Amino acid sequence: MGRATAESLAKKQKEISIGEFFQANKQILGFDSLTRSLITAVKEGVDNSLDACEEAGILPDIYVEVAYAAKTDFKIIIEDNGPGIVKRQIPNVFGRLLYGSRFHSIRQSRGQQGIGISAVVMYGQLSTGKPTYIISKTEKEEVAHWMKLVLNTKKNRAEVIEEDFKVWDDKEHGTRVEVFVQGRYIAGKQSILEYLKGTAIVNPHAEITFKDPNGEITEFHRVTEELPHITREIKPHPKGIELGHFINMAKASKHRRMIAFMTDEFSRVSPRVAREILENADVREKQSPRTLSIEDARAVLKAIDKVKIMAPQTDCLSPIGETLIKKGLRNVLAGLKPKFYAPPVTRDPKVYSGHPFQIEVGMVYGGELPKDRPVEILRFANRVPLLYQQGSDVITNAIARVDWRRYGLEQRGGKGIPYGPAVILVHVASTQIPFTSEAKDAIANIKVIEGEIERALRLCARRLKTHLGKSAKKAKNKEKFDIVQQLLPEIAKKSASIVGKPVPKLGKTITNIMNVIWVNDNVEFEKNRHRVSIDIYNYTSTGKKLNLHAEMPTKGLNEKKIVPMPSEINGEKVTWKLKKIPSTEVINVSFEYTGLGEDELGDIELFVSEINPAIVIGAEPLPGDWDLDEKARQSLFDFDEEEELAELEEAEEEEENGDVDYDEATEVIDDE
Amino acid sequence: MGRATAESLAKKQKEISIGEFFQANKQILGFDSLTRSLITAVKEGVDNSLDACEEAGILPDIYVEVAYAAKTDFKIIIEDNGPGIVKRQIPNVFGRLLYGSRFHSIRQSRGQQGIGISAVVMYGQLSTGKPTYIISKTEKEEVAHWMKLVLNTKKNRAEVIEEDFKVWDDKEHGTRVEVFVQGRYIAGKQSILEYLKGTAIVNPHAEITFKDPNGEITEFHRVTEELPHITREIKPHPKGIELGHFINMAKASKHRRMIAFMTDEFSRVSPRVAREILENADVREKQSPRTLSIEDARAVLKAIDKVKIMAPQTDCLSPIGETLIKKGLRNVLAGLKPKFYAPPVTRDPKVYSGHPFQIEVGMVYGGELPKDRPVEILRFANRVPLLYQQGSDVITNAIARVDWRRYGLEQRGGKGIPYGPAVILVHVASTQIPFTSEAKDAIANIKVIEGEIERALRLCARRLKTHLGKSAKKAKNKEKFDIVQQLLPEIAKKSASIVGKPVPKLGKTITNIMNVIWVNDNVEFEKNRHRVSIDIYNYTSTGKKLNLHAEMPTKGLNEKKIVPMPSEINGEKVTWKLKKIPSTEVINVSFEYTGLGEDELGDIELFVSEINPAIVIGAEPLPGDWDLDEKARQSLFDFDEEEELAELEEAEEEEENGDVDYDEATEVIDDE
Repeated sequence: MGRATAESLAKKQKEISIGEFFQANKQILGFDSLTRSLITAVKEGVDNSLDACEEAGILPDIYVEVAYAAKTDFKIIIEDNGPGIVKRQIPNVFGRLLYGSRFHSIRQSRGQQGIGISAVVMYGQLSTGKPTYIISKTEKEEVAHWMKLVLNTKKNRAEVIEEDFKVWDDKEHGTRVEVFVQGRYIAGKQSILEYLKGTAIVNPHAEITFKDPNGEITEFHRVTEELPHITREIKPHPKGIELGHFINMAKASKHRRMIAFMTDEFSRVSPRVAREILENADVREKQSPRTLSIEDARAVLKAIDKVKIMAPQTDCLSPIGETLIKKGLRNVLAGLKPKFYAPPVTRDPKVYSGHPFQIEVGMVYGGELPKDRPVEILRFANRVPLLYQQGSDVITNAIARVDWRRYGLEQRGGKGIPYGPAVILVHVASTQIPFTSEAKDAIANIKVIEGEIERALRLCARRLKTHLGKSAKKAKNKEKFDIVQQLLPEIAKKSASIVGKPVPKLGKTITNIMNVIWVNDNVEFEKNRHRVSIDIYNYTSTGKKLNLHAEMPTKGLNEKKIVPMPSEINGEKVTWKLKKIPSTEVINVSFEYTGLGEDELGDIELFVSEINPAIVIGAEPLPGDWDLDEKARQSLFDFDEEEELAELEEAEEEEENGDVDYDEATEVIDDE
Repeated sequence: MGRATAESLAKKQKEISIGEFFQANKQILGFDSLTRSLITAVKEGVDNSLDACEEAGILPDIYVEVAYAAKTDFKIIIEDNGPGIVKRQIPNVFGRLLYGSRFHSIRQSRGQQGIGISAVVMYGQLSTGKPTYIISKTEKEEVAHWMKLVLNTKKNRAEVIEEDFKVWDDKEHGTRVEVFVQGRYIAGKQSILEYLKGTAIVNPHAEITFKDPNGEITEFHRVTEELPHITREIKPHPKGIELGHFINMAKASKHRRMIAFMTDEFSRVSPRVAREILENADVREKQSPRTLSIEDARAVLKAIDKVKIMAPQTDCLSPIGETLIKKGLRNVLAGLKPKFYAPPVTRDPKVYSGHPFQIEVGMVYGGELPKDRPVEILRFANRVPLLYQQGSDVITNAIARVDWRRYGLEQRGGKGIPYGPAVILVHVASTQIPFTSEAKDAIANIKVIEGEIERALRLCARRLKTHLGKSAKKAKNKEKFDIVQQLLPEIAKKSASIVGKPVPKLGKTITNIMNVIWVNDNVEFEKNRHRVSIDIYNYTSTGKKLNLHAEMPTKGLNEKKIVPMPSEINGEKVTWKLKKIPSTEVINVSFEYTGLGEDELGDIELFVSEINPAIVIGAEPLPGDWDLDEKARQSLFDFDEEEELAELEEAEEEEENGDVDYDEATEVIDDE
């Protein structure tokens, strides 16, 4: 073959259409294997439906069907009760790559790229040669629009082959996609069912019905009528915004003065803040944004870095929340009865490159979870479960960076995915998830995001550890108690019978040995009912008076069955001012929960006050912040959290010193 | 905020320009951290330069400079002696995403997407606000063209801000890019230097000069004047082609008959093969491709699956080759002196979705390689080192699927990345590498590719194991020999001196004990010279005659220094018909190598013939295929290879039964 010259090359240099590009690189869109292609097709459809319903404030009802068509061809139907799509936009939404409504909005949504569903249409026709059928009806219209369309990959435009009106049962509004794709149907870990299950967990407001190729129907019922709050569209946050992006915004601004531009086109920039920034940057307030020089733009960005600006609004984000995280974990674990659920961590929103994001972490440990396997990682991005590319996800990276040996997990060299009986759930919510590819499988390794996840993981792990520690202590107390309560009398009885003497009263003896107040709690579960019983033994030589405090879940608590009546109930905080307990005697406090699953009852923490805590076993001294309201306590806690983190990080850094990072290598310059 | 309706959503539904999309998702292009952005920028430039030079049959001279500009801003210069770019194409090549010459060509090249270098220009202006400067000169032109350009992201077009002619020293042709990007410069594992080093290893025909931000210059010298063969552009191979793609080709065909279309537009389809396919599909030879129905197209594809079609031409691919793989590994290992280099495996080309691909694997083991860390994995795609996203690469997946415990590495549960003193190099060459994203970091998990890599890994590992086995045996022989040769005489001497008698001759005694022919080889290295000495001891009671055969590297062999003169030298196969060795006597064979590094001398394998091999220690019986020429032997070997693989796989499958795949889950239907 001839060797190329600049001229012969010039002839070959030409535009590549976006359609051709993705057709040739369908793996980038998540169509790299038959199994995965089927999952991707369902995922893109369902994510779209959920976004549309939520935007329109509609509780989603989604029907998904996967049916055998030909050999490896499947028919996929996804039908929702969303707002519908107006007729002229149907071909664009389904038949053009890079077309959509969410790309330009700064708020959390599942789809952002305007690629997903049209990619499904494209892959469908590439793999089966068949067109896609759309039905959509809006509230204002009497009938639905029906279209049969294909995607012209060279032009990246839809071709509507046939269209018609259609009476659509009694559906008020909604959209139905019917697409044929080549695929392979599997059950198990990375499957449609698994994706839908994960989706149902973090979208409890959705009703999802799934009919699999064998005709079996699985229903994920709505468990709340409450929609997640509609995420509010915000303006870009100035922190971390890119120079080029800033200059483009300035050039395109309708404002004539920098002060107005800064105040109006960014989040959290008040006139005062704008003035401070401009002053700091030595840029005039009256300077026109359109003629701003690169040097001035650079100065403004530098000033933004220095000036204190409020964190972004949180209402552009929609975190999963503590309850659902716990529920999600419980659901996944099914019969494995883990011993401990660490209280989930939800961090405050932070910003990367001007995009707000927020991290949530949940963790469970023990029970029948497998001990000799890598921990299970559950990844979510904007309430969508991520099933593929775990290895290249920032979540995995962050997990691999924590030294889990400190938290009781096995980890070779203190790096990498730990082994042990644990499940770790991480949710990244953001107005723009930085996915590593259009397939939206994995989140790119952005340093600030990684750092936040790491922090959340450490905090959650620390909570788990504290929890494990307390629990171990409790078990030990229990053991001692059993010896005193059961073994000693047993021995006394036996000895008495041998020597033929009456069984001695042991109260006094035990008192002499122990000299403690012993708080012993016990939970029994039977028929949907948890019975909690707390015995307070006075093993001292004099009568004792004390206050008992419990921090306990309110869900399922039968307030009428608390005996004796508490002196105070304040949310989850309950206080009993107990009457004096005579020496060697015991008094009991008990209460009941109903309607909870066996492993659903949260922790009950016991504290005592108005007694020397040194002589109490089985309850902690009441902490100083007990009286504060929840919010004040939380802020106290947040403070501790940051300090604790700093300590943790310092300790780990010391150990890691001199070590090359897993994915980053030694830095020569460190002035980011 | 208001709830959306179909109508309000319709207003927001709009086109997203490719430029805007990638600006908002720059992480997809490899610009997700400061460190990585700098590497990506250099990588895209250098890959482009190498492709251009090779296409034009020019030995590449590439100059790379990274210099500090502002705080975290860097100036990057990449200059080559390629064919240059004609003036009108300069703005397109550097200022438009999805524009290039290699996307539509079916042959191995580094760049294929038409995105890389324009993405660098885009990221440069996004992060620093600065334009890019291009100089290019073609052979036909007297002077070079100089341009200063930016990328208009909304329109995805270049804007030429300034242009001029420029006298360019005495450069005959070439291109120089000067771009400013925000970044962070690091040394170490994932760095520019590391990328260039890897590039130099697998592109030994390139001269690469690198000036780092501290002004230090590193030169990677050209070690061969030979260009890799220019890869030939081929037509698509019919195996595995997608239905939609096939239909598109048929519709766009200039041919009027299926027979002509099939024969002319596909690789390896002769008229005979085309006829067989069409007959099988029950499609008329005269059928017009343009009016082919989906059903007929489907039938043709089905027939293609059944009909035997030659494997794709290999000249569209350019594998690294055995020598360079060894060299590459050696280079990386530097001082770690691994004990064993497994002979690299180069598999025959295979096809995925109509794209030919080829796998190469190399492996080293032992020495001072760290024993308690995961093995080091070196990944290459079309002669480009891959530095990021190791976790989501098909290469990593394939490595994780092999049970390395069989090959002497530590691996928990027989899955995952093994631990131990080994380095594994894998090269995937293809006319289209299925990258997981536009950043070209990792190869998607395509089943056929994964399978081929797995097979290559197993073969290479098996070779390593055989090698280790032989070596252990040799060491044991050596030990025994040392006892006989040194210890026994030592004892004899000592005993003799104690009892005051003369030292007995031990030859006879040893002969009585042993009754063997002992072949003992020894390699000494001194001053660039390897001296190989082989002693053949006759520890039997009668004189023995035998032929000694050595399979030994020819590189560096000084044929004049072979003593005694061999009876035959046939490539790497050397035979000595030795004269009779009297009982208890020894004869010696020796030869020399010069000019090799200490660890550069390959294995020498010794065989014997015309003697009962059962009485020989230290050499194997001559294999039956010794007389065959290299090719015949190779085909024999290939046969064994496939059989061996089948055995290996069967054995592993048995063990794995009931186990869920790492990344695939249980299959319900298995009819792909």
